Amino acid sequence: MATIFSRIIQGEIPCYKIAEDEHFFAFLDISPLKIGHTLVVPKKEVDYIFDLEPQELGEMHIFAGKVAKAIKKAIACNRVGVAVLGLQVPHAHIHLIPLDNENDMLFTNKKLQLTEDQFKTIAEKISAAL
Amino acid sequence: MATIFSRIIQGEIPCYKIAEDEHFFAFLDISPLKIGHTLVVPKKEVDYIFDLEPQELGEMHIFAGKVAKAIKKAIACNRVGVAVLGLQVPHAHIHLIPLDNENDMLFTNKKLQLTEDQFKTIAEKISAAL
Repeated sequence: MATIFSRIIQGEIPCYKIAEDEHFFAFLDISPLKIGHTLVVPKKEVDYIFDLEPQELGEMHIFAGKVAKAIKKAIACNRVGVAVLGLQVPHAHIHLIPLDNENDMLFTNKKLQLTEDQFKTIAEKISAAL
Repeated sequence: MATIFSRIIQGEIPCYKIAEDEHFFAFLDISPLKIGHTLVVPKKEVDYIFDLEPQELGEMHIFAGKVAKAIKKAIACNRVGVAVLGLQVPHAHIHLIPLDNENDMLFTNKKLQLTEDQFKTIAEKISAAL
């Protein structure tokens, strides 16, 4: 069965899309730790990120880097943090999280509740900064 | 002034080294969240990881991927997590952290206190798995 991320990529499940290319896809995390919290996933279904071929892993981070630069332009923050945990959805994903301090990346923090309009506006701002 | 990581790379400050190549260096974090917690840094002194050239960013993650595979072989864990915060030392670094559950990557967790012998043994086990 396709992972939830594959279903998002295929458009079966809606998302607030930021960017995509031939191999990778970026969209807003709908349980964000911070405004602008984005997920980057490979279109290829791989559970553990280090099971990607080295070249693919490198390209995924280069793609994530472009998105991170756009997030930094669009969202006021000190810098964009990176996290890969991979213990929930079995489809490799990089979290890009705008940080003002170290505690902004605690996955135990309460997630933000945003409206559809807020998500749309954030996604548009980041996409426009790409 | 050279960053603490540059001084480690240059051998001015001792470390528990895991691996190095022409451009990158990996060594144990001496305030580890988990046994095997490793830092990967570029030899080039860059503060913000996304200020690396895209090619360098990709290569840094490919190097980190090799180290992560060795950590997974050497240290019992579910998988190796990745974190980049970058708010303390102004020299880009990737944390590689053996994870059994999501809470293992909370940077507010108490850091482990290990002896020099323990650090040496861990570094040797990971290096041997490369």
